[in-house]
Amino acid sequence: MTPKLVIVGTVALDDVTTPFGTVNRALGGSAFYGAIAASYWTSVGIVAVVGEDYPEEGRQLLSARGIDIRGLDSSAEKTFAWTGEYSYDLNTAITRETRLNCLLSFNPKVVEHYPSPETLFLANIDPEIQGRILDQLKNRPRLVALDTMNYWIESKKDSLLKVLRRTDLLTINESEARMLTGEYNLVRAADAIRKMGPKIVVLKKGEHGALVFYEGGIFSSPAMPLEIVKDPTGAGDSFAGGLLGYLTRHGKVSPEFLRQAAIVGSAMASFCVSDFGVAGTKDLSMDQISLRTGEFLDLTSFNRIDPGDRRL
Amino acid sequence: MTPKLVIVGTVALDDVTTPFGTVNRALGGSAFYGAIAASYWTSVGIVAVVGEDYPEEGRQLLSARGIDIRGLDSSAEKTFAWTGEYSYDLNTAITRETRLNCLLSFNPKVVEHYPSPETLFLANIDPEIQGRILDQLKNRPRLVALDTMNYWIESKKDSLLKVLRRTDLLTINESEARMLTGEYNLVRAADAIRKMGPKIVVLKKGEHGALVFYEGGIFSSPAMPLEIVKDPTGAGDSFAGGLLGYLTRHGKVSPEFLRQAAIVGSAMASFCVSDFGVAGTKDLSMDQISLRTGEFLDLTSFNRIDPGDRRL
Repeated sequence: MTPKLVIVGTVALDDVTTPFGTVNRALGGSAFYGAIAASYWTSVGIVAVVGEDYPEEGRQLLSARGIDIRGLDSSAEKTFAWTGEYSYDLNTAITRETRLNCLLSFNPKVVEHYPSPETLFLANIDPEIQGRILDQLKNRPRLVALDTMNYWIESKKDSLLKVLRRTDLLTINESEARMLTGEYNLVRAADAIRKMGPKIVVLKKGEHGALVFYEGGIFSSPAMPLEIVKDPTGAGDSFAGGLLGYLTRHGKVSPEFLRQAAIVGSAMASFCVSDFGVAGTKDLSMDQISLRTGEFLDLTSFNRIDPGDRRL
Repeated sequence: MTPKLVIVGTVALDDVTTPFGTVNRALGGSAFYGAIAASYWTSVGIVAVVGEDYPEEGRQLLSARGIDIRGLDSSAEKTFAWTGEYSYDLNTAITRETRLNCLLSFNPKVVEHYPSPETLFLANIDPEIQGRILDQLKNRPRLVALDTMNYWIESKKDSLLKVLRRTDLLTINESEARMLTGEYNLVRAADAIRKMGPKIVVLKKGEHGALVFYEGGIFSSPAMPLEIVKDPTGAGDSFAGGLLGYLTRHGKVSPEFLRQAAIVGSAMASFCVSDFGVAGTKDLSMDQISLRTGEFLDLTSFNRIDPGDRRL
């Protein structure tokens, strides 16, 4: 059976240093973080590649969360490895080293393993590959979501614009949205992106939350103010995984579900950053998640203001 | 009669350049912006000083909004003049010139004009002066609010800590909160500030909104995503004015009113940045304000999420 949500992306071994510690060869990657966050909400399959050095623990963790790993290729090369560091402000990762390794020959096979996903998330990879994946599929997924990065915006803009036309939802961070559109103002940048194809634009603002732009509305999803933030790695992927998992579970995109989905994404991101790697997201109970989304409601709720009720 | 809200601060003539234009000798200053924003909600008096070159238009504008200007001193010097510039990102003002002029001998007389305000807002001035103002008052105001800046945190920290102990509510921006406490994490910084005196800490995050920390809760107030932002000057003062005006009107501080007040402040700030100087805030109707606060509700609302309702 094809899982409802299929995520194409990276599975990585990360060396990460933050002011709160260092982890070596931590299980990571966009597909890995995204799939774990999404797995609380719907059936998930991943399409990625790992090398001969990939620890069995990684596959076990995915399977333990019920994630379909038929699409997880094995390569004779080494696993994609990222080394990064965060300084005190925890906002921007400084990449120390990127070893693409087995990613260099990554040829994602979606249709072979998962012929008809309801939702397809093309996480950040070469937009030409993203396009070829869409070409393969006989049935267009109900929802095609895409992520990208500054590198592709600079080096393969035409291919990116082509695949964007076939995309329903784009997750992108502030600076990338500005780079893609040439618009500094985020409202105008989101409008411009919506004209490129994706009817839903999710602008990620890191510790400041996210803005979701859709036909007829904007939703502002806050980030949870946390006393302990240990490692921001994977926060954006966990956000996207939670959001798309929730949308997939409901089988349709309405403003109501989209808003809830953004909060679910923010909740998953808040668990992610509270610990290194996937330690914060891999073993949650639905009670913990429910408590956290309730905290988001409390964080943002206020009663309607009636200025007519003016008492001088 | 003493106005309910008294604001001590600056009245200035600003030369401002943004990517969208330049204004010269625009009516500005913390007390000016704050009083105009607050005047929609309660009776307001200002304590400030202007020079011999101050245009009659400034006094007229304040009076037209029903603001008590008995506390507006006249000096034989020139009016405080600030020259600033914003680059494309509109986030950080670059100060080109600050001429203190008549501010150098500013000796705010609060009690003479307004013996018993309900709310006193000590906008950003020398903390020693802020302390002396509190010394003058026979009846402690129900709510004492304070603003400050990096300059005082660096140069007069002891005086600032003294006056903070007598403060109920502090408005402060992110970097200043970090500087004041030595805590990078904003939750811990707010906790540390609350231990210094003010039970309510309002962290201003500019285009990312504000976080309000109070006993037992945090409220995240978003900024309105606007297609047109012309001039951020005075946004923080308009925010504080709206917030304190609203709290004063209700005569008590509860989590409910505090949340609404932060939204009112955000609404006033959103009007402020949409035009140069006070052009965006000086002539609003209660209908326009009501529409805007309604937009904030729409921007942030979502229905409670029930993870138990899991449909795979």
